[in-house]
Amino acid sequence: MSQPLVGIILGSKSDLEVMQGAVEQLEEFGVPFELIIASAHRNPARVHTWASAAATEGKRVLIAAAGKAAHLAGVVAAFTPLPVIAIPMKTSDLGGLDSLLSMVQMPTGVPVATVAINGARNAAILATQILGAADESYRRKIEDYKAKLAE
Amino acid sequence: MSQPLVGIILGSKSDLEVMQGAVEQLEEFGVPFELIIASAHRNPARVHTWASAAATEGKRVLIAAAGKAAHLAGVVAAFTPLPVIAIPMKTSDLGGLDSLLSMVQMPTGVPVATVAINGARNAAILATQILGAADESYRRKIEDYKAKLAE
Amino acid sequence: MSQPLVGIILGSKSDLEVMQGAVEQLEEFGVPFELIIASAHRNPARVHTWASAAATEGKRVLIAAAGKAAHLAGVVAAFTPLPVIAIPMKTSDLGGLDSLLSMVQMPTGVPVATVAINGARNAAILATQILGAADESYRRKIEDYKAKLAE
Amino acid sequence: MSQPLVGIILGSKSDLEVMQGAVEQLEEFGVPFELIIASAHRNPARVHTWASAAATEGKRVLIAAAGKAAHLAGVVAAFTPLPVIAIPMKTSDLGGLDSLLSMVQMPTGVPVATVAINGARNAAILATQILGAADESYRRKIEDYKAKLAE
Amino acid sequence: MSQPLVGIILGSKSDLEVMQGAVEQLEEFGVPFELIIASAHRNPARVHTWASAAATEGKRVLIAAAGKAAHLAGVVAAFTPLPVIAIPMKTSDLGGLDSLLSMVQMPTGVPVATVAINGARNAAILATQILGAADESYRRKIEDYKAKLAE
Amino acid sequence: MSQPLVGIILGSKSDLEVMQGAVEQLEEFGVPFELIIASAHRNPARVHTWASAAATEGKRVLIAAAGKAAHLAGVVAAFTPLPVIAIPMKTSDLGGLDSLLSMVQMPTGVPVATVAINGARNAAILATQILGAADESYRRKIEDYKAKLAE
Amino acid sequence: MSQPLVGIILGSKSDLEVMQGAVEQLEEFGVPFELIIASAHRNPARVHTWASAAATEGKRVLIAAAGKAAHLAGVVAAFTPLPVIAIPMKTSDLGGLDSLLSMVQMPTGVPVATVAINGARNAAILATQILGAADESYRRKIEDYKAKLAE
Amino acid sequence: MSQPLVGIILGSKSDLEVMQGAVEQLEEFGVPFELIIASAHRNPARVHTWASAAATEGKRVLIAAAGKAAHLAGVVAAFTPLPVIAIPMKTSDLGGLDSLLSMVQMPTGVPVATVAINGARNAAILATQILGAADESYRRKIEDYKAKLAE
Repeated sequence: MSQPLVGIILGSKSDLEVMQGAVEQLEEFGVPFELIIASAHRNPARVHTWASAAATEGKRVLIAAAGKAAHLAGVVAAFTPLPVIAIPMKTSDLGGLDSLLSMVQMPTGVPVATVAINGARNAAILATQILGAADESYRRKIEDYKAKLAE
Repeated sequence: MSQPLVGIILGSKSDLEVMQGAVEQLEEFGVPFELIIASAHRNPARVHTWASAAATEGKRVLIAAAGKAAHLAGVVAAFTPLPVIAIPMKTSDLGGLDSLLSMVQMPTGVPVATVAINGARNAAILATQILGAADESYRRKIEDYKAKLAE
Repeated sequence: MSQPLVGIILGSKSDLEVMQGAVEQLEEFGVPFELIIASAHRNPARVHTWASAAATEGKRVLIAAAGKAAHLAGVVAAFTPLPVIAIPMKTSDLGGLDSLLSMVQMPTGVPVATVAINGARNAAILATQILGAADESYRRKIEDYKAKLAE
Repeated sequence: MSQPLVGIILGSKSDLEVMQGAVEQLEEFGVPFELIIASAHRNPARVHTWASAAATEGKRVLIAAAGKAAHLAGVVAAFTPLPVIAIPMKTSDLGGLDSLLSMVQMPTGVPVATVAINGARNAAILATQILGAADESYRRKIEDYKAKLAE
Repeated sequence: MSQPLVGIILGSKSDLEVMQGAVEQLEEFGVPFELIIASAHRNPARVHTWASAAATEGKRVLIAAAGKAAHLAGVVAAFTPLPVIAIPMKTSDLGGLDSLLSMVQMPTGVPVATVAINGARNAAILATQILGAADESYRRKIEDYKAKLAE
Repeated sequence: MSQPLVGIILGSKSDLEVMQGAVEQLEEFGVPFELIIASAHRNPARVHTWASAAATEGKRVLIAAAGKAAHLAGVVAAFTPLPVIAIPMKTSDLGGLDSLLSMVQMPTGVPVATVAINGARNAAILATQILGAADESYRRKIEDYKAKLAE
Repeated sequence: MSQPLVGIILGSKSDLEVMQGAVEQLEEFGVPFELIIASAHRNPARVHTWASAAATEGKRVLIAAAGKAAHLAGVVAAFTPLPVIAIPMKTSDLGGLDSLLSMVQMPTGVPVATVAINGARNAAILATQILGAADESYRRKIEDYKAKLAE
Repeated sequence: MSQPLVGIILGSKSDLEVMQGAVEQLEEFGVPFELIIASAHRNPARVHTWASAAATEGKRVLIAAAGKAAHLAGVVAAFTPLPVIAIPMKTSDLGGLDSLLSMVQMPTGVPVATVAINGARNAAILATQILGAADESYRRKIEDYKAKLAE
């Protein structure tokens, strides 16, 4: 497999099922990616190493999915100059409002690009759009996808 | 001025003050941009034309700011393969929760990249990060910016 | 079947089950209607064409049902002088609060008439009341319906 | 002045300032209207009499504005076959979320057409759209208004 | 059975199951009561007649249970000088926050005594406490009940 | 002054201004009352003593006003068989939603009668209605008050 | 078993299942604890006695779990100089937002240490961290636990 | 000054005014403390170094104050075995609900002890209670403070 352009990080193994949508969508677009599971709170060192190395390793966009007090995307963003997409996971008590606010309300200086609660597939599309900003082959895949959606 | 890489669209003239943060930040990064004011509801034709032409005109990222039932970013995203950043504007009654949910909860197929309520400066940083995904000169500007933040 | 007076548009096929209530109620009132499925984000052109033509084709009221960042009613309203009724669909994470705020908080100039979350039957009643504002035969149907409700 | 086609009812004198937007807009459209102040809780008899008589007196649409546990629109709707537009007033503690939910979440059988919090001007536009459903002169005024908005 | 001291009114037959808790508790306390089902919106006349007659018929406290835009307690309170207890019913979309705000946020002049969402048994206890304010036999029943709770 | 029938307890001196509405209303109705300031958290012993003695001292209704995690009404209710009215105070951060939920959502067995956020005057009216359940002179005062409201 | 260092109090037997997480975690850390069930509203005397005696009996941290208008932690905190950890229980209507706000928003002077909704295991970890502030053997257990988490 | 037992970290200089309450309270209790300003997102390295060294330097409790997507307390907790107190700062748009949920909803394994929105003084009291769990001189200061509160 070629060098991953997109790096996906999940806060917990339990997020894998929802993230299947992102995996399928990236495969459909032919975007090479890597997926790891590491918690910002339980294994911060692994997260920092992974995020810090991402740009120099050739990744172009990162996707972070987490739930509840979902700090993962913000922590990743603190360690990389790359754009970071945040997926707030649905929670069993507050429906994901906690995950959403924990991700989207980032303070000035360190943005993340938040998509809908459980919006795994949309995160993959957005990642591909970001690749497509500079690479016409990806942009054309998005255009084809949008054309199919319209049918 | 060079060809704008970032296109900014505001739903209302009243959003200009908050958006000043985005303007200043893009200027600081030396990112050429264009800013127009057009409402998705009051002037949809103008919005469609602008969004549809953006990619072929050479823009690489779009930023849409709107408040209340804030459809602007989603409407723009429907007409372009480019990544679209959404800024939910603070509202006087619900604090911007309405703008936030109207933007971030996009249905599968048409994501937008939502930043914090009134997060104009962060939208500019995120736009520059997206440019930097493929262009090392912008990535280095983000790295410099982050280094300065850390001081 | 006679010329439809009410046009119903759904953002997604998954909304059909809830919308059955609207269909039954309009049939009970003998109101001719048309129902299409088209997303404001995935197929904006179809939505625009349908909404733009509605008034000249003889429709008198439009009903739009959508969920999450529910822009459909607002987008339809931007393209027609007819009254537009909005049905916010219940969502699995935020219960429909997202759909509700995305619909009801429309900016000045382009109102939609929002009913309760999943309020399909009420949308049909409201549409018939709007027809009844000028047509006594529909108004009498509402009066009869209200008399039956009271029993 | 001609027979009022629109009847406006306010729950409290303190709502008058916000409602000025509705008054101006109806005057701009040349829609004859009547405005009374009566509380569903403090003077229910007056509200019932007014609502019950509205249709036979020639009114075609009613607008009810109230705040907090805002029952006024629902109470009016219980007594008339006419369409009832509800304006939830902003509140000083919960921002109007209480007014909004008290109005929009009407049970099956008795809908009201809810507009945005403090959406007085939009209520007037919606009322005119409802008149325009059957009366082309009003529909043309809406079309002209939308054309002006687009500029 | 003796003259009912407590009158219970439900907005819908579907509330009967939850209200069983109130019925059982009043029976346990030996409080004579009456229960009717009538909607403030679908059958306002029946509600007004019932509420207006309650005090002169010898009732001392009223209990109203309703869901969504729950106006029933407020409507009842508008027609009686008796204290009115409000039970906000849980709703399938917003969990009962809509019912709660629609009941508790009554405007100045017409209070209702709101208990917890689905708090049927508590409404019965509160009704008995109100009877007990003037009647020591009921107050002693409350004291006995509290003593048993403490075990 | 005669034996107080209503006991008012405030969680904090800062609630006095809002509570002025209750004081005025009780004076207008000629209801003898007592007012103390004592916090359930800072001075629980004083609260317990006051609440425990209230019934035997001749009080008939208690009113408790508090803000934030507003436990005062529930704590008072745990120590008395009398009905307890709860006034959730508006808060500077969450608008009083915290006070409201902390008061109204009492568990089974120990209800409080919650009125609107900052609803001091309504608490006084409700207290008088409770006295009026058994005492016709107070009931007539409520009837007169309601008649005046209707004007 | 040795003298309990942690005292756990539950508002209701129904909280036992969730609290199993706290019990297991304390056993895993070898922290001696005691668990009682007593409601702040139904049996305040038992709660006061237990909380008042806790420090002199040798307990060092208290944990209180309760739902809805969850006053238990605050009531306990009013009677002890020990740190009190609050676990807001998930509720079937508002998801636990009511429990959370009732616990965390304590007024100045009487704090409680609130963990996540249903965060029983985290309460046990926090209690052990508090013991570990002064006792290195517990601090090392936390360090070992964190090291295991990171794997 | 003696070795700090409490370490305070603020996400931003703008939090200093609110934090004055914590500073005053710790000084009143005679608790030696240290205060630094460092953002989890803008200067993660500084935060990690500070948090990692805290326990071995002799600190016993940490306090972290931050607003919006407030990750600071969680990030600190990931790097220390010490108990971490979280103060969610009030925000200008959502009132601090975002800060609160971002802090309190920590995932299993890494708790923080959350106090009220802007609850700086309470954080200081809780920190002193934690010191007092093992040190009677601090516990007596809390007892004296509580005795004074009760007056």
